[in-house]
Amino acid sequence: MFKVDTYTPTRVVFGPGRLEDLATVALPGKKALVCVTEDGLMKKLGIQDRVLALLEKNGVGAVVYDGICPNPTRKSVMEAAKIAKENGCDFTLGLGGGSSIDTAKAAAVMMVNPGDLWDYAYAGTGGRKEIKVAAPVVTVSTTAGTGTETDPYCVVTNEDTGEKLDFAVDAIFPAISIIDPELMVSLPHSLTVYQGFDALFHAAECYISNEHNNRLVDLYARDSVETVAKWLPVVSEDGSNLEARVNMSYAANILSGYTQALINTTSHHIIAQTIGGLFPGVAHGASLIFIAEAYYKKVCAHRPELLDELGAMMGVAADPANPGKAYVDALVDLMKKTGVYRLPMSQYGIKPEDFQKIVDVTVDGTGIDFEAYKLTKEDLLDILKESYC
Amino acid sequence: MFKVDTYTPTRVVFGPGRLEDLATVALPGKKALVCVTEDGLMKKLGIQDRVLALLEKNGVGAVVYDGICPNPTRKSVMEAAKIAKENGCDFTLGLGGGSSIDTAKAAAVMMVNPGDLWDYAYAGTGGRKEIKVAAPVVTVSTTAGTGTETDPYCVVTNEDTGEKLDFAVDAIFPAISIIDPELMVSLPHSLTVYQGFDALFHAAECYISNEHNNRLVDLYARDSVETVAKWLPVVSEDGSNLEARVNMSYAANILSGYTQALINTTSHHIIAQTIGGLFPGVAHGASLIFIAEAYYKKVCAHRPELLDELGAMMGVAADPANPGKAYVDALVDLMKKTGVYRLPMSQYGIKPEDFQKIVDVTVDGTGIDFEAYKLTKEDLLDILKESYC
Repeated sequence: MFKVDTYTPTRVVFGPGRLEDLATVALPGKKALVCVTEDGLMKKLGIQDRVLALLEKNGVGAVVYDGICPNPTRKSVMEAAKIAKENGCDFTLGLGGGSSIDTAKAAAVMMVNPGDLWDYAYAGTGGRKEIKVAAPVVTVSTTAGTGTETDPYCVVTNEDTGEKLDFAVDAIFPAISIIDPELMVSLPHSLTVYQGFDALFHAAECYISNEHNNRLVDLYARDSVETVAKWLPVVSEDGSNLEARVNMSYAANILSGYTQALINTTSHHIIAQTIGGLFPGVAHGASLIFIAEAYYKKVCAHRPELLDELGAMMGVAADPANPGKAYVDALVDLMKKTGVYRLPMSQYGIKPEDFQKIVDVTVDGTGIDFEAYKLTKEDLLDILKESYC
Repeated sequence: MFKVDTYTPTRVVFGPGRLEDLATVALPGKKALVCVTEDGLMKKLGIQDRVLALLEKNGVGAVVYDGICPNPTRKSVMEAAKIAKENGCDFTLGLGGGSSIDTAKAAAVMMVNPGDLWDYAYAGTGGRKEIKVAAPVVTVSTTAGTGTETDPYCVVTNEDTGEKLDFAVDAIFPAISIIDPELMVSLPHSLTVYQGFDALFHAAECYISNEHNNRLVDLYARDSVETVAKWLPVVSEDGSNLEARVNMSYAANILSGYTQALINTTSHHIIAQTIGGLFPGVAHGASLIFIAEAYYKKVCAHRPELLDELGAMMGVAADPANPGKAYVDALVDLMKKTGVYRLPMSQYGIKPEDFQKIVDVTVDGTGIDFEAYKLTKEDLLDILKESYC
């Protein structure tokens, strides 16, 4: 008998051209800390100035923090919070992709809580203090990947320890997320595909770990997987196709965010996150793609029915002689169609001698019960070895 | 190109046996006004005492207001709010079906706003004042119909004017809704079926008025319509079938609530609501069933594709020679299977000479733009005449 636990309190404003709503929507404060990446991309694209003008129209002040790098760090979060407090900001606005938005979320925590961010990390060297409150967060997404717009997570790397950890707390659900797929039309091909796979895996992993228990997870995950399978090849072929951007963004920024808000992803994501923590130059989606084929071949034995269902959603019929393989085949097919099959991790500076450390940090450092996924350290090592190229 | 505007902030705790969570869930206050109907049913079934004991376990005080009648009235809402204030309650808990929960929502408004409830009614003789805040609301559902557990509506009748009006405001989204289908197993057959159709029509009407614009509406509506079509005949046949209760409750209390949170129902619901206002003894679901066949025959000409899609969700294939008729046929089939086909409104005291008043109050009194639905007063009169038996 299924059950449903759900809590998705973010107000979502989604659609082409909807950035303009930022001028009229009821905002949760009077002065925003606008968080953007250090590469100046939002400025170059003109989006940062549009956002500042729209905030002004809405009668809201703003200060820009532009010190965020990919795989955002504890240090930049603390810096952002300090600037917010010094300037009297009462909410944050994450503008960009996961790095900007996750910094905005973590900074919102440190704007109203004492000490250091890592005092509140739940695992590894973290202090495990409870986060009860945060300043309100608004997001304006320019990518279609993480789902952080609609979920209660942020992922931050501790540059001193190499740990890359989730902070999962209801207080950081964004109050309002404005998702305008027109802002995604100029995303480069590689990022588009990496993030598309990230969105796919969020939904598919949640579908697997849900095991049909929470029916809303199945509802969101199924629509997300079907949508990504249909539209990722289209947007990979032509990034200017707005209909494809709208569909990918709906899947990534709403549905896959919701699935993560309701249930955990699997060890596939945790391994990828560890790789990102140890090798900060690796895009999160790329690290997921590295190991996907080998990972799901390994999982076939434990979750064949669910994997066959995922394969069917992606258009590959189950083969009774190879239970679970439909999903592996569907993934390989999608990776080939989008030009990311056998993505070489060697080119990102990862060497076979790093595998043991990746496995140890993944299993020992995160406090996750890997027994639940029925994968051992040996299994994870096998997956990394088989994925290497 | 679709868009998505969504805001469904209620924390939902759903599943058989989940009432017990009331002892441990973080409640939004220290003292509850528990709202139940005047017939003493919750007391007789032992549910009221269970709820009070669970609240006590949770360290929360409670005062019971048991003056609620079906189609709850302005007067009882004002009485409930007065009792809450006199007793220092800081939130309300609606225990039961739509009447109890809607009273809890409206009383929560009047606990923290001055004047009379009708000062805030948006139409007819209402004062049209804005509702910005309300006390928090918790719900414990014992029926599967209205969707009020997860939507921002309450419906209250003004006993002096005969108006039955919606109050639609974000402040009355429940903070927490506990939905335990085990509490629904003893619902009588007629109520079960009436409410099942109410849930079906919430989803189906929202599907029609959405016109594929907001994709989440389609997602929720489709799952709700398919679930009701499959499980309403089962629960009609055997009310003790818990799996059927779980499915019906999921459709009614979550999915159909969400569709209403995101978009309006159609004039089908407004006519039914008018009948309920003028004839308070008529169950809401019954008034929907009265006119359903004639209403959708009339709408066929305007919305044939959407009606055929709804028919297909219910297992009836479209007939190109009769566009839109698949839904009419599916409804008639479901009404026959559940024993409510040609439900005689004459037996509820409604006479043909009342029709003009029903139409006038529906069209003139609600301020709804009926042009949008392409139905005239003549059309509504025809529908009532054809439905009469």
